[in-house]
Amino acid sequence: MALKFANRMDKIRASEIRELLKLTVRPEVISFAGGLPAPELFPIEEMKKVSQKVLEENGEQALQYSPTEGFPPLREKIAKRMEQAGVKTTAENILITNGSQQGLDFSGKIFLNPGDVVVVESPSYLGAINAFKAYECKFLEIPTDDDGMIMEELEKALETTENVKMIYVIPDFQNPSGRTWSFERRKKLVEIANKFNLPIIEDNPYGELRFEGEKIPSIKSFDTEGRVIYLGTFSKTFCPGLRIGWVCAEEEVLNKYILVKQGADLQSNSMSQRELDAFLEVYDLDKHIEKIKKLYKNRRDLMLKTMKEHFPPEVKYTHPEGGLFTWAELPEHINTRELMKKALERNVAFVPGGSFFPNGGHENTMRINYSNMSEDKIVEGIKILAEVIKEALNK
Amino acid sequence: MALKFANRMDKIRASEIRELLKLTVRPEVISFAGGLPAPELFPIEEMKKVSQKVLEENGEQALQYSPTEGFPPLREKIAKRMEQAGVKTTAENILITNGSQQGLDFSGKIFLNPGDVVVVESPSYLGAINAFKAYECKFLEIPTDDDGMIMEELEKALETTENVKMIYVIPDFQNPSGRTWSFERRKKLVEIANKFNLPIIEDNPYGELRFEGEKIPSIKSFDTEGRVIYLGTFSKTFCPGLRIGWVCAEEEVLNKYILVKQGADLQSNSMSQRELDAFLEVYDLDKHIEKIKKLYKNRRDLMLKTMKEHFPPEVKYTHPEGGLFTWAELPEHINTRELMKKALERNVAFVPGGSFFPNGGHENTMRINYSNMSEDKIVEGIKILAEVIKEALNK
Repeated sequence: MALKFANRMDKIRASEIRELLKLTVRPEVISFAGGLPAPELFPIEEMKKVSQKVLEENGEQALQYSPTEGFPPLREKIAKRMEQAGVKTTAENILITNGSQQGLDFSGKIFLNPGDVVVVESPSYLGAINAFKAYECKFLEIPTDDDGMIMEELEKALETTENVKMIYVIPDFQNPSGRTWSFERRKKLVEIANKFNLPIIEDNPYGELRFEGEKIPSIKSFDTEGRVIYLGTFSKTFCPGLRIGWVCAEEEVLNKYILVKQGADLQSNSMSQRELDAFLEVYDLDKHIEKIKKLYKNRRDLMLKTMKEHFPPEVKYTHPEGGLFTWAELPEHINTRELMKKALERNVAFVPGGSFFPNGGHENTMRINYSNMSEDKIVEGIKILAEVIKEALNK
Repeated sequence: MALKFANRMDKIRASEIRELLKLTVRPEVISFAGGLPAPELFPIEEMKKVSQKVLEENGEQALQYSPTEGFPPLREKIAKRMEQAGVKTTAENILITNGSQQGLDFSGKIFLNPGDVVVVESPSYLGAINAFKAYECKFLEIPTDDDGMIMEELEKALETTENVKMIYVIPDFQNPSGRTWSFERRKKLVEIANKFNLPIIEDNPYGELRFEGEKIPSIKSFDTEGRVIYLGTFSKTFCPGLRIGWVCAEEEVLNKYILVKQGADLQSNSMSQRELDAFLEVYDLDKHIEKIKKLYKNRRDLMLKTMKEHFPPEVKYTHPEGGLFTWAELPEHINTRELMKKALERNVAFVPGGSFFPNGGHENTMRINYSNMSEDKIVEGIKILAEVIKEALNK
């Protein structure tokens, strides 16, 4: 007799994408598929120093259990860094999580009953969609344009949809589209959330990686009623391997996240929190981020230039002002899942865009990452991709 | 207007225990409350060496994203170590988690719908109870004695209870009771689970810390139908700060855990997994465990001896053959939550036992930890505790 699983397990089946992506780790593959930072910029020498320092000075504490909320000095430093997003806050409003992915899972756990509705951008981040699905929710996709989610569409949808329980958005250099919300849309979103009494989950893994244009304050900075829950991470500005992210929220709400964290895994890694804290103490993270931005800007420029030269004119793509991704739209009859198979045969990978639409469709789209491949591979890979696209168009 | 939370949030309120425990971190408190390993045995020097080695040899990989399943060489080493629990398995059956607490949360997520019933020992581990509560389950407590859960009681209960979905047990040096299941009970549990087609979650954080008596094979070792899910951890044998535990299960079941892990936090810490792997490569963990066992045996001996000399005869307590805890039962009219307040006034702490019974009652019990306090503090603290108990008895 087979074991009986909970109902939610029917919702979170293995995706075919995940199986496809496994094929992209072969060394000969030029992969624009992942969302991996450039490892050549990881501060390895600095990490060697801070790991010694932490073990030397506080070895017992670094290897022992520590508070669920996180290492207090690190929470303080993060609270201070929130000023960059236009948010004045204190350490008491910060919970350390295992990357922002854990903050997504907790958000689903805290706000969603089965059948509840989550409002998302169309398209939205695959990892968030999967995290929320475990809570047996439905998705309401709101159309987006180059300025973010379209507020008239949102308001209309909220007026006619029952059981909406939260709004999830990635306003800066969105995953997957690379687009950034305008100042006005951010402000308006908070007004609408106030009107409908909804929490907003603002997921901002890329906001510090702007290499063009003016900085726009976070949605949380417009929050006057404590309804915006901000998820941050060091995965893209420091490194993802240590799995350090955070939740910033008002005390009553943050307390729910802390309770959930305790049941989920007690606490995040004590040692890594102290290493990161020591790094922030000894080194200049903002200077380090400048290096990352410079490299990614070069790679974005090179990718967009190569796309302009080689992609057929039928292919539209976004111009990200920061972050890791661009997003391409092909003529409607092209299925990028099929295209991906052809590209993989020629050792080039991307993520078919359909996966980013929880309610299906849009199989003619693709997410293309530019942060992880070297310059020559970007040129080579985009040229091959252009050929594969042309072949598909000419069929 | 206040935000609306999911129904499950009503179940996981902050416990008064947690607030009490916060008071026990004052340095002047002799705390038998936590379940903390002895930090003086943490392999700090070895960690300094392996962290350098990992960053030197594989820095980029150690700081980058890595597979959800875990670092392959570490999974292999864990699979091999499972032989000590009498289990023959392979790396494909191992998933790395953030301590075994994460395995508990995932078990609830995978098996429990709201209203479903979890069978637990009476008493059971507080952290597991809290993790499962988030999935809105009910608890069926089965009486235990010095040989573990009483199988006749279990069978009777299963015959008359609907919607039982899993059995959760800690067969070795149980938290909180310190008791260990007999060979016969383990074997019988698997037979009963087979008959009722139920999964067994076998939580074994302390099994490797036996300092007296004969080793008894794990419940998983009796599993012929792939229904035992074994949760292991390095928190008590290496250190808890790195948050490395594992799930060992049959492929079909493990695949569910992997899917859930992906949504929950993508993966465990890449760097810590490689550090632990390097430690296991370069050093002898079993030799290290011998040191831990020797220290804990001394502390247990000293605690039980002091209890024998000073506790009034009305207090009954267990004789653990390993692990971190002993468990005391006082006359029924004594409420240990009240006792805890009196003890704290005199700077001694323990955990009132009522919290370990999900359906309430048993307020006359207490969990006492002996792994974390030095020998002189154990004697001093138990003497004070004895006085506090005597005062309560004489009131």
